[in-house]
Amino acid sequence: MQKRFILPEDQIPKQWYNIQAEMPNKPLPMLNPGTKQPVTVDELSHIFSRAASEQELNTTDAWIDIPEPVRELYKYYRSTPLVRAYGLEKALGTPAHIYFKNESVSPVGSHKLNSALPQAYYCAQEGITNVTTETGAGQWGTALSYAAKVFGLEAAVYMVKISYEQKPYRRSIMQTYGAQVIASPSMSTRAGKDILTAQPNYQGSLGTAISEAVELAMNTPNCRYSLGSVLNHVVLHQSIIGLEAEKQMEMAGEYPDLVIGCFGGGSNFGGISFPFMRHVFSGKKKTKFLAAEPSACPKFTKGIYHYDFGDEAGYTPLIAMYTLGHTFQPANIHAGGLRYHGAGMIISQLYKDGYLSAVDIPQTETFKAGLLFSQTESIIPAPESCHAIAATIREAEKCKKTGEEKVILFNLSGHGLIDIAAYDKYLAGDLTDATVSDEYIQKSIAELKAKLGE
Amino acid sequence: MQKRFILPEDQIPKQWYNIQAEMPNKPLPMLNPGTKQPVTVDELSHIFSRAASEQELNTTDAWIDIPEPVRELYKYYRSTPLVRAYGLEKALGTPAHIYFKNESVSPVGSHKLNSALPQAYYCAQEGITNVTTETGAGQWGTALSYAAKVFGLEAAVYMVKISYEQKPYRRSIMQTYGAQVIASPSMSTRAGKDILTAQPNYQGSLGTAISEAVELAMNTPNCRYSLGSVLNHVVLHQSIIGLEAEKQMEMAGEYPDLVIGCFGGGSNFGGISFPFMRHVFSGKKKTKFLAAEPSACPKFTKGIYHYDFGDEAGYTPLIAMYTLGHTFQPANIHAGGLRYHGAGMIISQLYKDGYLSAVDIPQTETFKAGLLFSQTESIIPAPESCHAIAATIREAEKCKKTGEEKVILFNLSGHGLIDIAAYDKYLAGDLTDATVSDEYIQKSIAELKAKLGE
Repeated sequence: MQKRFILPEDQIPKQWYNIQAEMPNKPLPMLNPGTKQPVTVDELSHIFSRAASEQELNTTDAWIDIPEPVRELYKYYRSTPLVRAYGLEKALGTPAHIYFKNESVSPVGSHKLNSALPQAYYCAQEGITNVTTETGAGQWGTALSYAAKVFGLEAAVYMVKISYEQKPYRRSIMQTYGAQVIASPSMSTRAGKDILTAQPNYQGSLGTAISEAVELAMNTPNCRYSLGSVLNHVVLHQSIIGLEAEKQMEMAGEYPDLVIGCFGGGSNFGGISFPFMRHVFSGKKKTKFLAAEPSACPKFTKGIYHYDFGDEAGYTPLIAMYTLGHTFQPANIHAGGLRYHGAGMIISQLYKDGYLSAVDIPQTETFKAGLLFSQTESIIPAPESCHAIAATIREAEKCKKTGEEKVILFNLSGHGLIDIAAYDKYLAGDLTDATVSDEYIQKSIAELKAKLGE
Repeated sequence: MQKRFILPEDQIPKQWYNIQAEMPNKPLPMLNPGTKQPVTVDELSHIFSRAASEQELNTTDAWIDIPEPVRELYKYYRSTPLVRAYGLEKALGTPAHIYFKNESVSPVGSHKLNSALPQAYYCAQEGITNVTTETGAGQWGTALSYAAKVFGLEAAVYMVKISYEQKPYRRSIMQTYGAQVIASPSMSTRAGKDILTAQPNYQGSLGTAISEAVELAMNTPNCRYSLGSVLNHVVLHQSIIGLEAEKQMEMAGEYPDLVIGCFGGGSNFGGISFPFMRHVFSGKKKTKFLAAEPSACPKFTKGIYHYDFGDEAGYTPLIAMYTLGHTFQPANIHAGGLRYHGAGMIISQLYKDGYLSAVDIPQTETFKAGLLFSQTESIIPAPESCHAIAATIREAEKCKKTGEEKVILFNLSGHGLIDIAAYDKYLAGDLTDATVSDEYIQKSIAELKAKLGE
């Protein structure tokens, strides 16, 4: 029985899928927080490359060509394998057919490279010389560091100070790829200086790191900011995952009844889901989609649909999203990539319209799932990906009860080798479920409404 | 232009290649150190599984079937890709065509799983319930931990104490796969107790860890010891690398003029080389082979051919090998997998007969090569593999001078994500070349001769 399905290089997709063009209801526009008017390409292109800004606002073209130099670099690791999880199926005793798309084989360890490469490419094409970003867990910063290097750009990565100190391996990987890594808050920006003056021992947050990176991009000639999730152009680039998976499922002679991804800002979930969802729009398929959130940050299951800022400080455009409020502080789970208060605007509209459902899962259940996966499928998954695995196991166990041979496809967004200390803590019994109280969520949402209206 | 060549699953080899059967001169027999007589399968099978013991002494069958359950597990990561290193070629400006076999995609991060799986399988088949081994750098221990888990065996890994403390990530990975990891020296064996009693703060060595693991295997019912390199059955299992590469080079429409591997005990070097070397034996091809040693442990370039022990304490059978003497202590380089005093018996005979050459390379040159490879080919290589890359770069630069379009194939034995601290030190300028003096080598060889005769 075939275990892995890999596309020949000439079958790797040559276009990304832009779901914005085919959604039954378009997402509400991104607004300039000052004027409350829809943002324009000109406004966005002060922060991002012009090409990325155009993609961000493109609601008409369903297919967008992947530039040839990006396709050449995709070949370094793509197609990623589609894998039938025979080992996991056997351990669960489930009649379900479980497949996973293995994005962990990327040289940087996650799907993040799929968007870092085009983002860096467009900057280089436009004569931009420097890129900057923030990173928490480190997967995105690593991807951008490598992408910048291959396209001849200088990269500066603001890494949340507590991660900078606790994850020296991740920092070293970015430096090996040639990036400058700065612990945030730093003295290199006004935002950083202000915070350090007020709180000299502040350990940093993603919100502060974003502010520092955006400030650097705005104040440096030929420098642009780059983001690894949430935004429409990022999800566009990640559609390569689902487009490949669609062809690979065909090689396997099956079609998914259910597609599952972990959910932070939406980049890996949208990437695996949207190419399959288009056939639901057209009425050809009835595939279900399930987003696996952490209980520490349950934006779909417990948040509200509302315009909100993308960052804690309130510098970004306003986005119509499912959100817990931009001041919401998720519990301190190891899945740093899922610790984000809101969902991207496309996925939020789709959730509102009933095209996907969501579950929130406590931390210990996710590591239990990750451990079983490691021991049966050989790959140690990233803490973020463990959420997708835990949701898959829940569904496979339902099938065991009903006898249904459901075909489940989930995205293995990354490996956990650099996050292995989290497994150590789990094995030692030192991890908590890290849920957040309904009272705290209501307080955070009330703050949002107080600032931006009902 | 095609970047990666991957075999369909039905093209993955179904047999290993046993070079012992076709060598022009067979290696001298392994000797029982007490009787000085050739060891027998019965003697070996007290330490290893009977199947592995038979393979160890099999000098007649050139092709040995890969058991079906092992082939099923090979599918979890094989075929590994053969990759054309366009990025590296461009950076070097060389006319050489550089290919590498990417064994780093194994879920445990290196080629070691190729032998761990069959070794664990044979033990399980023979009713053995426990396996034990030692690990220094950690690649082998990781591979055996996972292999034991999938075949339902308990694994105990003696990890050199200084590595246990300095490489917590590696230890955690083994524990995630379900292994018991013990810092060596430990109080669980007589060998460990004796050393700890004499030197309570001793930081451990590979020699001591081997002694502990062998002692545990000898004193525990249904327990066997397992080794990750040097031995003939290990090299046999690793032949899957070169057998795949041969088919993949054919897909690429080329044939290697030169095959390069880093050299520790011979498992990855033999694995990539021997399937190509058989065509040199038969006169069909004139391929050259180059072993890349560390200057810290130059057994080929500065050692002698002599019977020697496989371990520091002198517990193992005697092997005819190129050796620096079993008491030789290599300089403390990061490529822990290459810090071994001797070469396996097959490869030693082949070196003696002129079928391969060797170079020794100082540590900083290897990391310089690894850094260039990371930034051009996207994969951060293991410190061991950096030796193969450094040797490849030397050869590619020769081609630049001569204009020769030589086809070079090297084995990328593993990734360096868990060894990233070494890159940190290199980038900070804190690494030395770690060469050893000729005087020290002569002293160590003199000790060998004093113990075992001229």
